[in-house]
Amino acid sequence: MIDPNVLKGFRDSLPNEEIPKRRIMRMLEDQFQNYGFVPIDTPALEYKQVLLGKGGGETDKQIFSFEDNGGREVALRFDLTVPFARFIALHQAELPFPFKRYHMNKVWRGEKPQKGRYREFIQCDFDIVGVDNAQADFEILSLMDESFKNLGLKRYTFQVAHRGLFNAYLEKLGIKDKCVDILRTVDKIKKIGKEETKKLLIEITNDEEKAQSILDYITPDENAGFIARLDHLVSLCGGENEASTRLRDIYKLLCAVGIEKHFSLDPSITRGLDYYTGIVYETILDDIPQIGSVCSGGRYNNLTSLYTKEVYPGVGSSIGLDRLLAALTELNIPLFSDNTIADVVIFYKEEETEKAMVTGAKLREKGIRTVVYLDPKKKMKAQYDYAAKMNITKALSFNEDGYVLKDLTTRESANYTTLDEVIAACSR
Amino acid sequence: MIDPNVLKGFRDSLPNEEIPKRRIMRMLEDQFQNYGFVPIDTPALEYKQVLLGKGGGETDKQIFSFEDNGGREVALRFDLTVPFARFIALHQAELPFPFKRYHMNKVWRGEKPQKGRYREFIQCDFDIVGVDNAQADFEILSLMDESFKNLGLKRYTFQVAHRGLFNAYLEKLGIKDKCVDILRTVDKIKKIGKEETKKLLIEITNDEEKAQSILDYITPDENAGFIARLDHLVSLCGGENEASTRLRDIYKLLCAVGIEKHFSLDPSITRGLDYYTGIVYETILDDIPQIGSVCSGGRYNNLTSLYTKEVYPGVGSSIGLDRLLAALTELNIPLFSDNTIADVVIFYKEEETEKAMVTGAKLREKGIRTVVYLDPKKKMKAQYDYAAKMNITKALSFNEDGYVLKDLTTRESANYTTLDEVIAACSR
Repeated sequence: MIDPNVLKGFRDSLPNEEIPKRRIMRMLEDQFQNYGFVPIDTPALEYKQVLLGKGGGETDKQIFSFEDNGGREVALRFDLTVPFARFIALHQAELPFPFKRYHMNKVWRGEKPQKGRYREFIQCDFDIVGVDNAQADFEILSLMDESFKNLGLKRYTFQVAHRGLFNAYLEKLGIKDKCVDILRTVDKIKKIGKEETKKLLIEITNDEEKAQSILDYITPDENAGFIARLDHLVSLCGGENEASTRLRDIYKLLCAVGIEKHFSLDPSITRGLDYYTGIVYETILDDIPQIGSVCSGGRYNNLTSLYTKEVYPGVGSSIGLDRLLAALTELNIPLFSDNTIADVVIFYKEEETEKAMVTGAKLREKGIRTVVYLDPKKKMKAQYDYAAKMNITKALSFNEDGYVLKDLTTRESANYTTLDEVIAACSR
Repeated sequence: MIDPNVLKGFRDSLPNEEIPKRRIMRMLEDQFQNYGFVPIDTPALEYKQVLLGKGGGETDKQIFSFEDNGGREVALRFDLTVPFARFIALHQAELPFPFKRYHMNKVWRGEKPQKGRYREFIQCDFDIVGVDNAQADFEILSLMDESFKNLGLKRYTFQVAHRGLFNAYLEKLGIKDKCVDILRTVDKIKKIGKEETKKLLIEITNDEEKAQSILDYITPDENAGFIARLDHLVSLCGGENEASTRLRDIYKLLCAVGIEKHFSLDPSITRGLDYYTGIVYETILDDIPQIGSVCSGGRYNNLTSLYTKEVYPGVGSSIGLDRLLAALTELNIPLFSDNTIADVVIFYKEEETEKAMVTGAKLREKGIRTVVYLDPKKKMKAQYDYAAKMNITKALSFNEDGYVLKDLTTRESANYTTLDEVIAACSR
């Protein structure tokens, strides 16, 4: 006998999880397409060099890579952003620019498995490539807002910042050369706390006053709105610059379509990754902030430079589907806490087989989602257990006069002589 | 610069292909759920032993396998059937039986790439596990028929046979011990032709007369219907048996719901795979038979025996999505040859940015799929090229009096003063 277990860090998705997961993906897909974003897919397996670039180092250890039968160094993709950059470089002549695409699929990482962190997970990415302006930044943010609204979420905050503004401030402090280390440290503040962050900033800058200045910069005034905070940061930076103008333009558009209330300017958002060059953002669900950001991203203007000389500026966002699903379940959003896919189950006796199959076909024709329980020899208890596991609340069976429809929650039965009556009762 | 190419045998899916592919998958999913089939997913990567069983041999060379960082022998799944058997064994206590599930996802094979054959492709499997009766066999066949109908296909034939009937015949000939080799040979008849098949059968049986008898058995009378063919086979086998009774029961149910015309009894269908134990079937599109079977499967009653002592008989079917998509495209089925996702594109000048974004939001609210072209600095030619690549036939722009809606196919323009008029014109 072979042990039927899965690998450490991997898991099966059972129907109770897979049903809502697919529902979310379809809802997101409808949303993406409604904005003119088109789907693409890329291979799960790529040349290792394509995925890792010149890099290596930390990422190298975290990916699944091996030598294939043809002696090629290959690896499983660890995100959807790097393959997208490669995709753009390869297909640039065929694509409509500005290219808006979405990509929802699995990625793999060899990280140490932890609670809520797996070695295989689904990302939902959407990006606009080929243009660097406020309209594109705005559209990604606006699509995020509409997706969250359509998922049934009400209380959420998109925390927005701009790398360029922070860089201007570090330049004014005379420590712009240390910006990568500083960005990475600030990115961890929610995990490690203010004290620890300050300690690390002092280590990097060798200057307590400057470390304190950075902490002041990234701590927003709780009572100030988007524009007041922006004005404050601009004054710290020594005046308006491209970054602040961009933020003002984006905010103006958010106000124009009336969705500005979900957006907050939060200078502590930096995103750890090197490749961001403009706005960056994370998303907090106000009722369960501890779950972390469920949708993050930013503007990256040099991502394709590894594969092509052409310049393709981009802006995009990524939804962690598993985390989002966990959140929607925790918040009890009806569409995703209900995983019923059928309206009624038909129970029948062996000699009623033909009648059962014909009735099933007719009910489905009328749009009633109908499961026929296919094992009439089983005891009734097994049949009811099936209905319970499938979350089906109505059971149809036959008697000499016609049909019996039982409500499995109230245990009440009703008799009907015609199928039309059954259809009417099931459609309620 | 890194070469942005994909691995040999792999490919990117561009929007023109990915849009119809996702449409087919959603349509199939609706169909599956309508019958009470629930979705599952399993890891792409599994223990090598779980996937290969005691086996090895031919399959072994054709899969992507390697040693992971923890020293485990792992492999990418090469189908969705083996992981499903493992899944059943692992989760049997939690699942509702008879368990009806669908699974649509990628599988990987290290085969030599050929025209139309890739190392990564999508399978759509649907199975009923936990019961061995005519109702379950019927339901899989009926779901196949309804899916094909809903995809817009009209001329197709499900070719059905039964392993048990063929085995009874071989037993009568006294060559049942050679049945595996004979089944595999017969399975290739469409590829290698009658002559070559006969030659191979003589080699296996060492008996020209018996080889000819097998050929006679598998060659159906072109003018006979399902039941006449069955009667003929039964007489060849020396009388009714379990297999012929099962086929009669299935056919009765197909007739009861009125879908029997798409089903033909074809004794040459054997399916090469060892694990089938009952009915087997393939699907031919009558107008493009050369494309091969787009949906195949059968009954397997011992599949989980590698992983559990419990017996779970099953019956199922698998659609090769890439082949099906190619067929639907070749047959010019409108739903899949049209890959437009937007009704209208908005072109605007820089100073009209706000108006463009607000108009886009309002049109979408009214259910009009609206793309805003996000690069107003580009020349008009680039903008029209974008619309052409996206297959969008209407372009909206602004003038001092209101809106201009241009039909990009006729090149005719119409002027409107209110957005309501635009909405009405776009909804047509």
